[in-house]
Amino acid sequence: MNISHIEHVGIAVTSLEEAIPFYEKMLGFKCFAIEEVEDQKVRTAFFQVGQTKIELLEATAPESAIAKFIEKNGGRGGIQHVAFAVEDGVQNALDEVQEKGGRVIDAHPRKGAEGLNIAFLHPKTTCGALLELCENPNK
Amino acid sequence: MNISHIEHVGIAVTSLEEAIPFYEKMLGFKCFAIEEVEDQKVRTAFFQVGQTKIELLEATAPESAIAKFIEKNGGRGGIQHVAFAVEDGVQNALDEVQEKGGRVIDAHPRKGAEGLNIAFLHPKTTCGALLELCENPNK
Repeated sequence: MNISHIEHVGIAVTSLEEAIPFYEKMLGFKCFAIEEVEDQKVRTAFFQVGQTKIELLEATAPESAIAKFIEKNGGRGGIQHVAFAVEDGVQNALDEVQEKGGRVIDAHPRKGAEGLNIAFLHPKTTCGALLELCENPNK
Repeated sequence: MNISHIEHVGIAVTSLEEAIPFYEKMLGFKCFAIEEVEDQKVRTAFFQVGQTKIELLEATAPESAIAKFIEKNGGRGGIQHVAFAVEDGVQNALDEVQEKGGRVIDAHPRKGAEGLNIAFLHPKTTCGALLELCENPNK
């Protein structure tokens, strides 16, 4: 698998309206997009930091993975996932992980925010961290 | 404050010996350094991914922040912190956060892995995420 860089870091927050001002006023970033991803029941806000985006994630329903993360985290936000940009296709990368004995959450890529093809690896395989593989299909 | 990029993402693991092979064999990264940071009671392993490093962190004592993170996380590893590279000095950045009403864990920078000057912001200010500011004093 050929990973070029960290595409984004996903940070769960209880409220985008509270979190965006911290990232803009304290850290000096600029929110360039807010997007709702209905499939994942989240609302996201993006900031570009060098090669990588910070993706803030707010749950839009109690069954959202973000709502569950926050509940497990004592009601607080926190860093939920890291997404690596793969250069040779998410499906190839998923196949490679499984051929090497690893487990995946998504056997096939699905659509994420910003139109990316995304898939998550299983935390049992990654030693605990929630790691995403993604690619921009328009590149 | 002027942040250029994400310097590293810190991922807590229960065992470097178990985690390093996943990052090398499954993701194709190369571990370029293993370092013990006595002050923080951790052993770290580094991988370069584009502009950013992945820093795996294993606790060397039960009172280590990494041991506490893993305990709170049900005995599993996970993504512990994100470190932003500041261009105009960590102390200036800490002063700016506090002038704007934010809270910090470290009022002054201290030495981290790789000889960086580092300081953590308070999760109350960051909406939950553990965020580090850092600079390379030799640059």
